Amino acid sequence: MRNVTQDNITDVFLGYFGKETDPRMREVMESLARHLHEFAKEVKLTHAEWQTGIAFLERMTEFTDAERHEFVLLSDVLGLSSLVDMINSNPQGTSSSVLGPFHITGAPDIPLGHDMKRHYEGEVLLACGRITDTEGEPIEGAKIDIWQTAPNGLYSSQDPDQDTYSFHGIQTTGADGKYGFTTVKPVSYTVPTDGPVGDILTATGRHPWRPSHLHYIVTAPGYRQLVTEIFPDDDPYLDQDTVFGVREDLVMKYVEQAAETFPDGYELSGNIAEQYLMADFDLKLVEEGG
Amino acid sequence: MRNVTQDNITDVFLGYFGKETDPRMREVMESLARHLHEFAKEVKLTHAEWQTGIAFLERMTEFTDAERHEFVLLSDVLGLSSLVDMINSNPQGTSSSVLGPFHITGAPDIPLGHDMKRHYEGEVLLACGRITDTEGEPIEGAKIDIWQTAPNGLYSSQDPDQDTYSFHGIQTTGADGKYGFTTVKPVSYTVPTDGPVGDILTATGRHPWRPSHLHYIVTAPGYRQLVTEIFPDDDPYLDQDTVFGVREDLVMKYVEQAAETFPDGYELSGNIAEQYLMADFDLKLVEEGG
Repeated sequence: MRNVTQDNITDVFLGYFGKETDPRMREVMESLARHLHEFAKEVKLTHAEWQTGIAFLERMTEFTDAERHEFVLLSDVLGLSSLVDMINSNPQGTSSSVLGPFHITGAPDIPLGHDMKRHYEGEVLLACGRITDTEGEPIEGAKIDIWQTAPNGLYSSQDPDQDTYSFHGIQTTGADGKYGFTTVKPVSYTVPTDGPVGDILTATGRHPWRPSHLHYIVTAPGYRQLVTEIFPDDDPYLDQDTVFGVREDLVMKYVEQAAETFPDGYELSGNIAEQYLMADFDLKLVEEGG
Repeated sequence: MRNVTQDNITDVFLGYFGKETDPRMREVMESLARHLHEFAKEVKLTHAEWQTGIAFLERMTEFTDAERHEFVLLSDVLGLSSLVDMINSNPQGTSSSVLGPFHITGAPDIPLGHDMKRHYEGEVLLACGRITDTEGEPIEGAKIDIWQTAPNGLYSSQDPDQDTYSFHGIQTTGADGKYGFTTVKPVSYTVPTDGPVGDILTATGRHPWRPSHLHYIVTAPGYRQLVTEIFPDDDPYLDQDTVFGVREDLVMKYVEQAAETFPDGYELSGNIAEQYLMADFDLKLVEEGG
């Protein structure tokens, strides 16, 4: 087309596609380009703003490597990651929530009742629950991959003072579907703000805080993988998670328990002074294809 | 918001903005996020597709440095660069067209009639015209920054066999507004396809060709800068420029001229066998603020 105009450019773009293009590729690229074009026309994007955008993307490259995933963070703070979670959630199961950039593979297997707290200071939390199907029936042989920050708000991969797999572990359920471990109460923390994504937060007057949470990935044969987080209902950032991860059904309650009720079968290094917290939260998996 | 849903996430995103946010920043980010969210919902983007997108962006970083601007190329092949050109064009002046990634600063001043062809093989082209205002009145003291590929289809910055400023030069107009130089007929060429942008072209069955063209940046005190290209009407890729740069008013005609008509005042190393080509093209500038 030698006469490309503002009005026909999206059609010209689509007209360039080869006939053999995969239909899903065509669908995704068509929608992406149309929305990108509509965005530029709607705001009458200037050359200077376009250049700012290109410079932003080029600066993203300086903050991207095998350890740091600034584009994931960008998707997170724009709400795209959470939106993809919600689009692909089945309301019969537990909601999914952002994976975030701090999951690491190869965490050790840990037994039911394992102590992840070890020598770390902080309030003792006993987190437990059952992994079930959508009818509430326990699933045997489900695996739950657990991770959280240390009391300093850092994940092990961010913190040279932690072991590689500190506050990481994988449990496998028995016939009763139960999981459970001892840990420290998670803390609210900020996403990294030293890169270009931090600049977006600053420019739009946003804070970088996430409410405290426990991360879980739950898998079981015959069921869809569940990537999620659970949040205590008393966290001050619950209503303003900077990555939009909170869902109503992922909010749980810390119940204060007297020290002497600490159950058998749960490990704990050190003593509980007066009380500990308990978070009992069931996770519902949806069958594959559901 | 603890109950973020597919339906309210764009509003929740906007609700996070600080009150002091610059209004234009708010406008641009609001539109960008809304279109990004609508895109994801419209195509029901899957987690696997989101991961493909993140991996694509992370691979973009491997092809981005001070010399190579893969994000500019991405914007070009998606039609965004051309759309920004058109949004900001004033129809009273010559249309603007993509800058592309190969402009370099510091090109030498060259006199009217300068020979850019030198020892290179190829058909002789005499490119000339006038730089005028929208009324067609010549502009004195306008500067025209000229660049093109060598006959091998490579710009000097891509080609170790060329001098830094080969096929680059800047002319300044006199009272008659005239510019003019001798060169070789430009050739069609392909954009770089070894990076992730090349993968998009392949996946959508698109070719990487651009029609042959001459690049100009024209500046004059009191006038808006014009970044443009002109294209010969006989180029086979005129109707399928992979970066959407062609506009109807940027198409020109090569007129065949007998060798003996070659004008005084134009330099040329070597002889013209029988004929040369002439491209006479006026460039109209719009006043500043217009």
